[in-house]
Amino acid sequence: MTQETLTLIDLVTDRDLDGMNDWLADHGALDIAEELTRLDPTEQAMVFRLLAKDRALAVFEALDPVNQQQLIDALADESVNDLFRHLDADDRARLLDEMPAMVARRLLASLPTDARENTNLLLGYPEDSVGRTMSPRYVSVRAGQTAADALTKIRRAGLRPREVLVVPVTDDQRGLVGVVDLPDLVTAEKGTRVGDLTRPETYAARVDEDQEVAARLIGEADLVALPVVDTEDRLVGVLTVDDAMEIIEEEETEDIQRAGGVEPLGVPYLQAGGLHLARKRATWLLVLILAAVATVNVLEFFEDTLEAVVALALFIPLLIDTGGNSGSQAATVVIRAMAVGEVQFRDLPRILHRELRVGVLLGLMLGAVGFPIVWFFYGVEFAIVISSTLLVICTWASFAGGLLPLLAKRLGIDPAVVSAPIITTLVDATGLIIYFLIARAVLGI
Amino acid sequence: MTQETLTLIDLVTDRDLDGMNDWLADHGALDIAEELTRLDPTEQAMVFRLLAKDRALAVFEALDPVNQQQLIDALADESVNDLFRHLDADDRARLLDEMPAMVARRLLASLPTDARENTNLLLGYPEDSVGRTMSPRYVSVRAGQTAADALTKIRRAGLRPREVLVVPVTDDQRGLVGVVDLPDLVTAEKGTRVGDLTRPETYAARVDEDQEVAARLIGEADLVALPVVDTEDRLVGVLTVDDAMEIIEEEETEDIQRAGGVEPLGVPYLQAGGLHLARKRATWLLVLILAAVATVNVLEFFEDTLEAVVALALFIPLLIDTGGNSGSQAATVVIRAMAVGEVQFRDLPRILHRELRVGVLLGLMLGAVGFPIVWFFYGVEFAIVISSTLLVICTWASFAGGLLPLLAKRLGIDPAVVSAPIITTLVDATGLIIYFLIARAVLGI
Repeated sequence: MTQETLTLIDLVTDRDLDGMNDWLADHGALDIAEELTRLDPTEQAMVFRLLAKDRALAVFEALDPVNQQQLIDALADESVNDLFRHLDADDRARLLDEMPAMVARRLLASLPTDARENTNLLLGYPEDSVGRTMSPRYVSVRAGQTAADALTKIRRAGLRPREVLVVPVTDDQRGLVGVVDLPDLVTAEKGTRVGDLTRPETYAARVDEDQEVAARLIGEADLVALPVVDTEDRLVGVLTVDDAMEIIEEEETEDIQRAGGVEPLGVPYLQAGGLHLARKRATWLLVLILAAVATVNVLEFFEDTLEAVVALALFIPLLIDTGGNSGSQAATVVIRAMAVGEVQFRDLPRILHRELRVGVLLGLMLGAVGFPIVWFFYGVEFAIVISSTLLVICTWASFAGGLLPLLAKRLGIDPAVVSAPIITTLVDATGLIIYFLIARAVLGI
Repeated sequence: MTQETLTLIDLVTDRDLDGMNDWLADHGALDIAEELTRLDPTEQAMVFRLLAKDRALAVFEALDPVNQQQLIDALADESVNDLFRHLDADDRARLLDEMPAMVARRLLASLPTDARENTNLLLGYPEDSVGRTMSPRYVSVRAGQTAADALTKIRRAGLRPREVLVVPVTDDQRGLVGVVDLPDLVTAEKGTRVGDLTRPETYAARVDEDQEVAARLIGEADLVALPVVDTEDRLVGVLTVDDAMEIIEEEETEDIQRAGGVEPLGVPYLQAGGLHLARKRATWLLVLILAAVATVNVLEFFEDTLEAVVALALFIPLLIDTGGNSGSQAATVVIRAMAVGEVQFRDLPRILHRELRVGVLLGLMLGAVGFPIVWFFYGVEFAIVISSTLLVICTWASFAGGLLPLLAKRLGIDPAVVSAPIITTLVDATGLIIYFLIARAVLGI
């Protein structure tokens, strides 16, 4: 058996130290981080100790906050403090946020004063705000400086490369004037004024703004860093594109999980225990099954009709599935359009008009396809009932699917919550009423 | 009525040129681009002509490819060619890709030769590959050069700021050796060798690799640019973080729409006409309703049982909804974990084991909650039927929801396709069989 066919898990199971060292030497920080998450915490700590200091930091930074915390728990104190001191302030803040208070205090106490101040500064802002994720490590220059002076200042600041790709320009009161791209400073004649090199458009985020809004702005405006200002437009930090990408991935995961009727897991799937997974799904399953009791009530109300024509029951799943699918489709496209900022509440009339049209078109199509088939097997009256029910349900479901997410947003509820499962359950009960009313009228029961 | 309360749409409707000019002066490129998409193409062209050349380019770049194409169609030839020449090569390639062939050829012909070559180079790579999105505009340096010489070369290259934030280091044969961060070149002593400043880890993408994989790598490794190499490891271009964010947003939109049973729209929601929207949903609705015919067949098979105890019909929607919800939950978390690279096919046994456990837990919970309620209203036998059906359906649905996305991926099908609506429909038919078999056994029909 050659080395390449062995995974890290195999080597750890065999306690093959040489093999592990070879494996670690052959793999990059990202691969190592990924494989680490497949091990249990004590094994993670063992492998982690085999890494050189520089690589250990790279691997640690590549882990999710949850995995970072697990790893820290597993490592002994001194090595943890050492690792912690070398992290970026914003990574540190995020980590502290998810750590039990006692551990957090102990780690914070072990930091040098200036690093501690940065972390504390970040921790003062509300959860999910830009203030939490921004980096307070930046260097700012003045509009009146020359490019050469600005470069000297940047050199002396001793920051990491990604912290100086974009440099904020401020006035005497730390007020944000604009930003200048480092390449423009480098390429300019030495005597050029910084003010003449600033970007034509200045984007900035308020420190208490929602971090997702700021992260999406970075994407839309093709930025690598966004200055963050306080209520008086004074510079307090910088949100970098790597943090923006992480924010967007986290928020999308939450939205997608909510849309699937799952409370955000908060941890990677394989890290979530069975009980944790069950808890995150139980609430919505319970809410939805209680809502589905309405369908039992509706059917009870029409029980006489059902007893008279039992064959009506045969089409119940098909009709409510179709209504649910149609409503989910509408909700899905509208919720996504809201998430990426394509539509707002004021577009409501246009969306409803459009969804009504689409619903009618789809309903007509399904009705036309179903009519001859149902006619052939169950007679013309049944065909009329099923086809017209499909038309009305599709129209109503599309309308509801377009309306509810926007209404939810207006009422301050996450639109992703009002999604497929909710709309399906709503459309089911109302769809059954539509079905039986039409059936009674057409069949004359 | 003051100026601020008027939207661009109002001003355009009133053909108020002064008002439009004021509005444009008051708003940034992103806001303008967003409002433009709410106008019809001829109105877009009118507003667009009011913009100064520099701002026009910024606004144009902020538009989606689809909107860009619409706008181009609406503008007269000379102004289009002018706009086109100022775009980045990769934006140009994406635009050409979505344009009717004749228009594309005409525009390509109007470009200066070197720009045309860049675009052609990009167009040669398969769709959705890194080659399509990368920028062929880069400057590379040698490991043996001094930092000062490297900076001089970068200055002379005359590229845009975002194209030189990270500089690839190559050997004599254009082979990729590593990358160096511009800030490191700037901060280093003038005589330092470039080779001593390169990053410890080198990430690169193959030119034919899936663009989403490369984009996610940029996010995971916190990069601002990723070198792209050919099969012989020679540098051919660079994928920048702004393009990576756009790729991820597009791919997530596609995944989310597929998960909601909608073929990817390919255009922003408000830009999609009613017929287009209906077409993108019709296929799946038809597929799903045809699949749902299985539920009619199952019920027909059990029609005698239904006629004997009509009350069994009352619980059909509740039971199949719960099965569908449970299956959707499992599929949602597994599909998302696959999308962000947390799980792979080899994790299948762990996932199935976990989903079975979660399904049993949730089924037990729902069964326990439902038992006393159903007992009270419908007697103990019904309570046993409903509770045990909930247990079996939840377990089966969670198992199927965890299994199908991974199987799909294995078979080369996008896992997002095997999502909520598909699993709901599958679980419905099988869930009904489970329900009636249990009912027959318990009620002795």
